[in-house]
Amino acid sequence: MSLSGERFTAVYRIACPPQEAEARARAICIEQTVEFPERLIEDAAIREQVIGHLAWLQAVGQDRFEAAIQYPVEAAGRELTQLLNVLFGNISLAPGVRLVGFDLSPSLASQYPGPRFGQTGLRDLVQVPDRPLLCTALKPMGLSPGELAALAYRLALGGIHLIKDDHGLSDQSFCPFEERVERCAEAVARASRETGQTCLYLPNVTAPADEITMRAQFAKAAGAGGLLFCPGLSGLDAMRALAADEGLALPILSHPAFQGAYCLHPDSGLSHGVLFGQLNRLAGADAVIFPNWGGRFAYTQAECRDLVAGATRDMGSVRPIFPVPAGGMRLDRVQELREFYGRDCILLIGGDLHAQGPDLVASCRRFADLTVGFPDQC
Amino acid sequence: MSLSGERFTAVYRIACPPQEAEARARAICIEQTVEFPERLIEDAAIREQVIGHLAWLQAVGQDRFEAAIQYPVEAAGRELTQLLNVLFGNISLAPGVRLVGFDLSPSLASQYPGPRFGQTGLRDLVQVPDRPLLCTALKPMGLSPGELAALAYRLALGGIHLIKDDHGLSDQSFCPFEERVERCAEAVARASRETGQTCLYLPNVTAPADEITMRAQFAKAAGAGGLLFCPGLSGLDAMRALAADEGLALPILSHPAFQGAYCLHPDSGLSHGVLFGQLNRLAGADAVIFPNWGGRFAYTQAECRDLVAGATRDMGSVRPIFPVPAGGMRLDRVQELREFYGRDCILLIGGDLHAQGPDLVASCRRFADLTVGFPDQC
Repeated sequence: MSLSGERFTAVYRIACPPQEAEARARAICIEQTVEFPERLIEDAAIREQVIGHLAWLQAVGQDRFEAAIQYPVEAAGRELTQLLNVLFGNISLAPGVRLVGFDLSPSLASQYPGPRFGQTGLRDLVQVPDRPLLCTALKPMGLSPGELAALAYRLALGGIHLIKDDHGLSDQSFCPFEERVERCAEAVARASRETGQTCLYLPNVTAPADEITMRAQFAKAAGAGGLLFCPGLSGLDAMRALAADEGLALPILSHPAFQGAYCLHPDSGLSHGVLFGQLNRLAGADAVIFPNWGGRFAYTQAECRDLVAGATRDMGSVRPIFPVPAGGMRLDRVQELREFYGRDCILLIGGDLHAQGPDLVASCRRFADLTVGFPDQC
Repeated sequence: MSLSGERFTAVYRIACPPQEAEARARAICIEQTVEFPERLIEDAAIREQVIGHLAWLQAVGQDRFEAAIQYPVEAAGRELTQLLNVLFGNISLAPGVRLVGFDLSPSLASQYPGPRFGQTGLRDLVQVPDRPLLCTALKPMGLSPGELAALAYRLALGGIHLIKDDHGLSDQSFCPFEERVERCAEAVARASRETGQTCLYLPNVTAPADEITMRAQFAKAAGAGGLLFCPGLSGLDAMRALAADEGLALPILSHPAFQGAYCLHPDSGLSHGVLFGQLNRLAGADAVIFPNWGGRFAYTQAECRDLVAGATRDMGSVRPIFPVPAGGMRLDRVQELREFYGRDCILLIGGDLHAQGPDLVASCRRFADLTVGFPDQC
């Protein structure tokens, strides 16, 4: 066995007493590769070339360390699933280890085209060069396709750029996927013709593994302008496959359902920047929804900043994507969101648009007006 | 809109002060269904029929409560992905909420055939009616297909019942999937002919979304006796699709890579019984690997008992599956494992078989001898 010598780097935060830090880091080097007692490996080439290398280890706080570990590119093969496995497969099961960043090497990075549109491409699609994009959701669950289409029409008429299915809409008896998608796509197209402004309808194509592609193809044929997808339910790689599908070529909005546990505890799981930023980018999302600080959930400002950094940091040819702060945002917080995220974000407001009063179109227009004159950056 | 009235039940553990418990539980009823301010829902049928019902709420400790919430079966549609979404999609993002169990209603349960083999079927396949089954892994990563096949031959000769690929073996340049599977399957079949005992080889078919089925079909054609799959990397529903595939009809061993964050913190995520037991069963695993207490990881005895309960509790027609305690198990702990898990488990020992000395066949036979005379139950 002889490998190329090219390696990629993962950075872990480790919670342990100082005297254990190096041993913990070296255990990760083993666990994520050979997963076998080093002394029992007869082949010196495996010991030297396959096992992770500890590049550096440094204290970052009281009983907190960061370790950079370099893995051979060949260990990750040519597959996102196996890259995830090397980055955090078994070690996810150990307490006190959090993946806080990674850098792919050139040959590994070249395997991942990432988002087809990214920030720039999505701006081009909706022809909004310099303001935050406006997004909302079709809900509540229980409305019929016709009722959702009527809702979508008004939202599009009010100037929303991206109208997504609620992530709770799949293919239920009270709202079948195909009828919903056809009617909502038609309604949004009709409103766009009236306003002269582009509005994309993004149906939820999170589905059983063997139906995802069919639903996405149906959505495309029906005139959907993008797709909503929950990688926590259907897998990050299923999203990658959607993004890579040349026959679809639709932007993808990633929803965080079922992914909460990855980030909730600061000493384990994945950092917000890794999960919502780096991994969603490798998996082809063009924008990523997350619960903003101060909403119904409990993310902090620092976690949201880390997320934005992961969504936009240099990853070679992998495009930056839009952060989509959500989870109970309100019109009266748009100013605050403007100041925090700058102009390169998508603002997602759901229920609060309806809480403004009966004239939903007017409420959407007020939402749009609030985003004019955005500062340049976070 | 008019629904059937049939509901299924999820039980959540909530960490909060007593005065907040009911409001937290009622917030889950909303978050997991309509995700919309209740006062803004005009249609009374949606308020009454779609929103979750709080069936009961009880204190289970200091600032800890359990809430049973009943959801309409129609909300979960006919899809595992959407069932996961209703059970724990958005609420996974909130701190202090853990899903600790669920009961499907009859019509919902009938949609999930679950494991094709389960404990009884897997015992029949390897013709071991009353002892724990023996399992080991092909590793370390870096060995060639020929070296792994030679290893598989000796392990099968020693009486191991299930030989799985290390979960780190996918389709790497140093060990291509097809060559590995063909050679290992052939080696295991040859050893089985010599011993007269059935040994199953389970290659790892965790793969990109659009290649899983092809790899599984290749494995079947090459003579593999089962499949190893990592639902944390490829998705629970992709495993369900494999289990449901009539053309494959192979037992599935589920590996916990990348799933650690779900269970690590007792006040969030999924209980061990839900993730490794109930959800793996709905998703078709016949046996589930997890890190046993006292190994390289940090699960407790209570967590492992909860896991066994989830793997074996009544779920209607969904079969009980084997717990596979692993993660650094050793021959000198077999007695302890016998006492803890009883006979209805699969014992997975990797590196320690190699640490016994150069005669691997003899070490496997000693492993087998240690499992004779197992007590009846946990």
